[in-house]
Amino acid sequence: MTLTGELLIGQRAVTGTQAAIEAVNPATDEKLEPAYAGGSKADVEQACALAWEAFDSYRETSLEARAIFLETIADEIEAIGDDLIERAMAETGLPQARLTGERGRTCGQLRLFAKVVRAGEWLDVRIDPAQPERQPMPRVDLRQRHIALGPVAVFGASNFPLAFSVAGGDTASALAAGCPVIVKAHSAHPGTSELVGRAVQKAVKSCNLPEGVFSLLFGSGREIGQALVLDPRIKAAGFTGSRSGGTALWKLAQGRPEPIPFYAEMSSINPVFLLPSALGTRGEEIAWGFIASLNMGAGQFCTSPGLVIAEKGPALDSFIQTARDALQESASQTMLTSGIFEAYQQGISKLTQHGQVQEIARGKTGDTPNQCQAGLFMTKAADFLADETLQEEVFGSSSLIIECANASEVAQVAEHLEGQLTATLQMEDADVDVARQLLPILERKAGRIMVNGWPTGVEVGHAMVHGGPFPATSDSRTTSVGTAAVYRFLRPVCYQDLPAALLPEALKDNNPLGLSRLYDGQREAVR
Amino acid sequence: MTLTGELLIGQRAVTGTQAAIEAVNPATDEKLEPAYAGGSKADVEQACALAWEAFDSYRETSLEARAIFLETIADEIEAIGDDLIERAMAETGLPQARLTGERGRTCGQLRLFAKVVRAGEWLDVRIDPAQPERQPMPRVDLRQRHIALGPVAVFGASNFPLAFSVAGGDTASALAAGCPVIVKAHSAHPGTSELVGRAVQKAVKSCNLPEGVFSLLFGSGREIGQALVLDPRIKAAGFTGSRSGGTALWKLAQGRPEPIPFYAEMSSINPVFLLPSALGTRGEEIAWGFIASLNMGAGQFCTSPGLVIAEKGPALDSFIQTARDALQESASQTMLTSGIFEAYQQGISKLTQHGQVQEIARGKTGDTPNQCQAGLFMTKAADFLADETLQEEVFGSSSLIIECANASEVAQVAEHLEGQLTATLQMEDADVDVARQLLPILERKAGRIMVNGWPTGVEVGHAMVHGGPFPATSDSRTTSVGTAAVYRFLRPVCYQDLPAALLPEALKDNNPLGLSRLYDGQREAVR
Repeated sequence: MTLTGELLIGQRAVTGTQAAIEAVNPATDEKLEPAYAGGSKADVEQACALAWEAFDSYRETSLEARAIFLETIADEIEAIGDDLIERAMAETGLPQARLTGERGRTCGQLRLFAKVVRAGEWLDVRIDPAQPERQPMPRVDLRQRHIALGPVAVFGASNFPLAFSVAGGDTASALAAGCPVIVKAHSAHPGTSELVGRAVQKAVKSCNLPEGVFSLLFGSGREIGQALVLDPRIKAAGFTGSRSGGTALWKLAQGRPEPIPFYAEMSSINPVFLLPSALGTRGEEIAWGFIASLNMGAGQFCTSPGLVIAEKGPALDSFIQTARDALQESASQTMLTSGIFEAYQQGISKLTQHGQVQEIARGKTGDTPNQCQAGLFMTKAADFLADETLQEEVFGSSSLIIECANASEVAQVAEHLEGQLTATLQMEDADVDVARQLLPILERKAGRIMVNGWPTGVEVGHAMVHGGPFPATSDSRTTSVGTAAVYRFLRPVCYQDLPAALLPEALKDNNPLGLSRLYDGQREAVR
Repeated sequence: MTLTGELLIGQRAVTGTQAAIEAVNPATDEKLEPAYAGGSKADVEQACALAWEAFDSYRETSLEARAIFLETIADEIEAIGDDLIERAMAETGLPQARLTGERGRTCGQLRLFAKVVRAGEWLDVRIDPAQPERQPMPRVDLRQRHIALGPVAVFGASNFPLAFSVAGGDTASALAAGCPVIVKAHSAHPGTSELVGRAVQKAVKSCNLPEGVFSLLFGSGREIGQALVLDPRIKAAGFTGSRSGGTALWKLAQGRPEPIPFYAEMSSINPVFLLPSALGTRGEEIAWGFIASLNMGAGQFCTSPGLVIAEKGPALDSFIQTARDALQESASQTMLTSGIFEAYQQGISKLTQHGQVQEIARGKTGDTPNQCQAGLFMTKAADFLADETLQEEVFGSSSLIIECANASEVAQVAEHLEGQLTATLQMEDADVDVARQLLPILERKAGRIMVNGWPTGVEVGHAMVHGGPFPATSDSRTTSVGTAAVYRFLRPVCYQDLPAALLPEALKDNNPLGLSRLYDGQREAVR
């Protein structure tokens, strides 16, 4: 499949007029063809105009038609074949197995959202039937459903070139909600983005949808992204990336004449608590699991375990010994971009130069560009509590062990944490009482709490929460992974005394779509 | 019942140390005793400390205990008896019948939220059971529930001294969600606020809840409200009031180191569309209904019909004639405060002085202070489209008729509107096609769409949406009236592989609470 380096605006492919971006193979620092000339404000304008034009029609597509569209996107992505994996490998330095798995996740995610669309739970249908006889006033007929917010801007992430990018979770959930999507491609993988973008474009066409349902823009600076967020026709945005980048765009979204929801998934250091009995009985096993999780994808996961908290003592010492040995054997891995590599180096260097931080171990060095040499560090709870900068995320394989004097200091550290995507407890039955003390704190801090697992696996399911209090995300009431992500792009509308001829299908008396409904406050059985 | 003029901080009553507020009877401009000395930042600090202390325990009260608490508040409010109605009448100028009805609504609302708490839909329980045999990777056990966001600041509204004030919809829904509440009383009705506040305080005590579950603060300036919104222990806020006041506090909430959700219900002019057949066949009846809705509570409803849109012609002329006659007969009514009266006078004066606006009629004048003399105005669609200021809410009995040249201009006016709480269609069967054209536009503009009703009635039900796109509210994804309001104060938490001993009751295998659950993506039948 030949890449053209064009923007995709509706069904057209357009050559940009602004400064070009070129992908770079991070493993070799070699540039990859073609160049992607950046879009202009006029291109943003056109994409938004098309999206707006498509909105009213797309948001009222039948559940079946919308589900088939999502499934067609998945089919089209699979139809690209090996070209997609090869281009993504070249652009990201990620290994083939990871990208093949990620493609499976991406297509599975699209197909899962198709199921979600068909089931229609997201419509949150509520019917309060009229009570004409009620005293002192008759009750009107009220029916509620959820409708799509409007066109959505999606900012592709660097670390998942498929699952969190052009047709990733944000796009899938926005399309499922009935929102047209305009993607600003991440500049690190434009070729991968074009391939996936063309797959979506094809699906729009073969499903006979209005072309504005999807556009894909490239741009080297911040201009395109800012113009997108500021366009009055954009009604929400999804972003996965750095705290600084996310915060800047979020402020822009809030400062609009009509502010809009901006869902940024930003930074998390994912604390892991090693409770005494677990540490004492299987410290070694935990240490191996920890290092494996830390090294996964060179630590370039939002959920990488960047903080380990435990009480001091021989069990912790022995855990550290094993973790040190394991880490020292870690092969270096190519990071996603030279920018991420440089930020990682700076983060590591801050830790190594920190007076109260001790270096436990480094992984192996590499001899190709942008290689992540894993790092494990340690500090005391009192020092951690005294220095906010020790909570800063170091994106990449880097973790900090916090040695606590006792259980109360462990709780203090937990209470001191900023908002997180995840919190993990390594525990045995004998640790239940300690865990019970920590749990209320962790519930206030994190979107997902796990026991005896590692945070780097994020299942795409119905109960998943990939979210959490600020600064993990900009909106703790939501998730960016899992089927509940669709709710980010919806709002309720109430219909009062509408004649049957005007009622949306979802709200009709005989429930023609077979939806789960709250009828007069009672959950009805689903057919 | 003797009023003391004290702040209520947890179970204590404290005399403020700052500038005092004194209620004024708007019908006489006479001051009402006692004075309410304002709270200091130290008082905010104490209320927040208590709320924070109460939070973890209150949010885990059993569904039954929390429901009983809400019901006890309702009982305690009723137990105040006539004193409450009399004080509220003196402080607001509202008639007895209205306040008696509002008390019924307020207590009914608390009892409805008690039912909501018991039913537990708001927990949004989702269970994805483990699949240990899944290939290539086993699936973990994931369970989701919603938990309370944290202590909530509530700003009482001026126009509903009971239903949107100390124990109104924001407080009831936040308490239902498991959030402690700190109310900043509206300065227009401090005595009513104290009475209700003491009722809540008693309920906290008799239900053996931690005292920080509820506090009530008074303050003359903006300092108390700002300090509340900025306190790091406050995790959300609810506000009903002006666009300027709401926007200012909202910006403050967004600018915090940890931004928080700020639910402001602000301004809406509630367009009413008179479709041709309805106007032709029952224009007179519609005119009477319109003026009755406009005059309700001197127009001091968020949902007052401030805009009427119709095609020009004899039917509209005749509607206007009837509306003029009806309005001219309207008795003047005391407005809630002199501040609201002055703002109303300014709004009216802007309209009367507007070159493209024609005065149709004014209601009767009054001879006591702060009397609202209703106003009805008219302009042409082209002039309305050309001047944004004509969309500004005039809080009080004031409405603007927009004369359109044809159906396409009606649609243009609809498309030009800012976000609204409501949109109304007056229509007959013969208008269905026109209505069908307007509906998608109105869905994008308003939280509630009604047919052949008037927007001033807002039912407290499960399907109600009292919300809408900006500037009607700060968050179109929510409602401030009705049981779905509880969702504003919740966030999802996912529990992965938690041992049974640690799982919250709501998430246990055998569903001990009998909740509606999404099990592996399927809605289970409720027991």
